[in-house]
Amino acid sequence: MRKKLFYNTDSKNQVIPITSDIEKVVESSKVKNGMLIAYSMHTTLGLIIQETIEPHLCEDIIDQLARIVEDDGTIYHHRCADNPKAVCKTDAVNGPSHIRQMLINQNLVIDIEKGKLNLGTFQDIGIVELDGPRKNRKVLIKIIEE
Amino acid sequence: MRKKLFYNTDSKNQVIPITSDIEKVVESSKVKNGMLIAYSMHTTLGLIIQETIEPHLCEDIIDQLARIVEDDGTIYHHRCADNPKAVCKTDAVNGPSHIRQMLINQNLVIDIEKGKLNLGTFQDIGIVELDGPRKNRKVLIKIIEE
Amino acid sequence: MRKKLFYNTDSKNQVIPITSDIEKVVESSKVKNGMLIAYSMHTTLGLIIQETIEPHLCEDIIDQLARIVEDDGTIYHHRCADNPKAVCKTDAVNGPSHIRQMLINQNLVIDIEKGKLNLGTFQDIGIVELDGPRKNRKVLIKIIEE
Repeated sequence: MRKKLFYNTDSKNQVIPITSDIEKVVESSKVKNGMLIAYSMHTTLGLIIQETIEPHLCEDIIDQLARIVEDDGTIYHHRCADNPKAVCKTDAVNGPSHIRQMLINQNLVIDIEKGKLNLGTFQDIGIVELDGPRKNRKVLIKIIEE
Repeated sequence: MRKKLFYNTDSKNQVIPITSDIEKVVESSKVKNGMLIAYSMHTTLGLIIQETIEPHLCEDIIDQLARIVEDDGTIYHHRCADNPKAVCKTDAVNGPSHIRQMLINQNLVIDIEKGKLNLGTFQDIGIVELDGPRKNRKVLIKIIEE
Repeated sequence: MRKKLFYNTDSKNQVIPITSDIEKVVESSKVKNGMLIAYSMHTTLGLIIQETIEPHLCEDIIDQLARIVEDDGTIYHHRCADNPKAVCKTDAVNGPSHIRQMLINQNLVIDIEKGKLNLGTFQDIGIVELDGPRKNRKVLIKIIEE
């Protein structure tokens, strides 16, 4: 069973908790025992298991990624966001967004036990927008019954 | 088949090789051909495939994470370790621990072939404590037969 | 169904797109609906989903990893690449290579839909050599039918 979730983001960088959306997918699947895989279908959108319900931590996630990966896209080699062969658009210098996604995560695997995601007490699931604002960011969910 | 492994850690930051524990789970499952998934059930405990049996490399892992992610938790926004709504405890400024876990890994997927983990010559599995010392750190193991 | 892919690399650091090789494995498996897992069988070879067909971005990946993780291996504790118990070889100071692999990714999970990898428009798969040049770098592919 497969489902895509869609999100609109409204900042350049933004963490959005999506656990409850994924829980609804698990519930509607009726799978009691199995495995869930999920991944971002983008190269500048991360998907992480963290404590994304804590907004101050989300600020730190964004701040620290900006500290670790230089923010000025014009100093990167990658200066065309849309396509390798496209004419460069000076507003599409999103090299830092790609590097940040590479450093965090893009996929996850979670056990389903008694129809629920088997997460630790403080664990939740969030997307990390790294090149927004964007429409229709996609997360693919797949549930495999055991 | 699912099993939780439990670990006590005794330092703030510590890498502990756990390959042999996971190999025992595979053995007791009697699965000859399949797939193993494993993940940390915490937001400040990493799980990695590396050469964690090499103690000098483990020192580097800890040193480099301290170099890349600023160590002083009081300068982070996230200042309550326990709960977003909890009263702040000044001893629970573990923002850096969360960011470090986000940069390394928290889950893994390994092939099981002829009843054994299919790892490369120098690959092994280790947990990375990033906010210890702690008791009962949990790693969830799931084995899916093919 | 399991298959290993082999690659020779010819630089110290190098990103090589391998999507078409993995697509061929999917095709020859005849699996129409399922899941693919893949991982690097090395501790200094990453495996990522990014836009690795864009060579300028690949330059950024290498440059940024060199910026984030100090390049001089002799200042790391890990000074024997081959084995923890081996005599140190001064040419095998690959601590930075291990740390870089830990920061990026080493495994991936992708949905197979109608016999094809279910990737986003700009997503592709690449290996990231971090300690080359090397012969016979291995990527394990496993396909599980639903």
